[in-house]
Amino acid sequence: MQNHTVGGWLDELASESSTPGGGAAAAMNAAVGAALISMVCNLTVGRPKYAEYEKELTAALAEAEELRGRALRLAGDDAAAFGSVIAAYKLAKATDAEKRARTAAIQQALVGAADVPLRTAELAAEVIALARRILPGSNANVVSDVAVAASSARAALDAAAVNVEVNLAALTDEGHCAAVRARLSSALTAAAEADAVVAEVRERIAK
Amino acid sequence: MQNHTVGGWLDELASESSTPGGGAAAAMNAAVGAALISMVCNLTVGRPKYAEYEKELTAALAEAEELRGRALRLAGDDAAAFGSVIAAYKLAKATDAEKRARTAAIQQALVGAADVPLRTAELAAEVIALARRILPGSNANVVSDVAVAASSARAALDAAAVNVEVNLAALTDEGHCAAVRARLSSALTAAAEADAVVAEVRERIAK
Repeated sequence: MQNHTVGGWLDELASESSTPGGGAAAAMNAAVGAALISMVCNLTVGRPKYAEYEKELTAALAEAEELRGRALRLAGDDAAAFGSVIAAYKLAKATDAEKRARTAAIQQALVGAADVPLRTAELAAEVIALARRILPGSNANVVSDVAVAASSARAALDAAAVNVEVNLAALTDEGHCAAVRARLSSALTAAAEADAVVAEVRERIAK
Repeated sequence: MQNHTVGGWLDELASESSTPGGGAAAAMNAAVGAALISMVCNLTVGRPKYAEYEKELTAALAEAEELRGRALRLAGDDAAAFGSVIAAYKLAKATDAEKRARTAAIQQALVGAADVPLRTAELAAEVIALARRILPGSNANVVSDVAVAASSARAALDAAAVNVEVNLAALTDEGHCAAVRARLSSALTAAAEADAVVAEVRERIAK
């Protein structure tokens, strides 16, 4: 997605084509959150007033850049995983052997299709944790952008959770479903953390 | 922003430059939400199974396209409004007359700078209302994308609210501040509506 123009990518998102779809949108929201954390770090590091937080925000900047790169790759992984599901459903099902092979291929593809939004949710939770970490030392002029970063990552988290559930709905391996749901639940605790970041920023602005 | 590559736009968002910043990010989140509503409409209209909702979703598609275009323009408006604030702060302040002119220019620029995120919040509320409207008639295969649209628009709403408050903080015209806050409060009621859309989609998926 990164080499498309923003307008062109949104046109594709809006089109009848299933990819890019909600999975890529969630990854994009996470990437926007990570990019804003980078911006806040870039506008804080090197300022004498925030020297106390220099080390912390320099480390956060490197992490935010890494998270943004991962988010962009997840958008591509999502399209590939969706392609595998579609390909599996199209497999021949004339004989019993073909039916079994097709069912196995569909199940395997669904495992992959649930894995991408699960990783997106976990990445979004990392972006939110990073927003919380930089909040005390962020340049006051751009503290509102920390809230925007947290909101955007929270949207990625909520969206990814729905996308995980959609793919688990047709998965028959209950053990795997339970394992994925456990990881998802853990990531989803970051939603409250995002709300706390937004609330704290609002308080600071109101002062 | 629409003619930049996605990767290039995110690089600029992450950079030390203040624009694009949180205002453009909020507009982008709203545009992503609107684009996903278009996608769901495009994948529903013309399907015999959803003939009952054809008229409603055809109308929604046109609205979603219009909202996406407006969101992209708001990202540009945000950069322009921010530029006016910076320019006003740079005005000469050697004489009393200059000081008065500068203060007036800053106040006028802040009114404009608060207006853009206010319109973004109102636009995000429209995207959320549209998500709710299409939910009953959406192609079941892409109902999860209605939730992603609502989440993304909710992030735009929350982000825009913070950006409105940041600009109001330095505005001295209390009457104008009160009028803006009243419109913002009204837009913010859509947050609960977005959560309701996400909850309903989750219920449907779990069935």
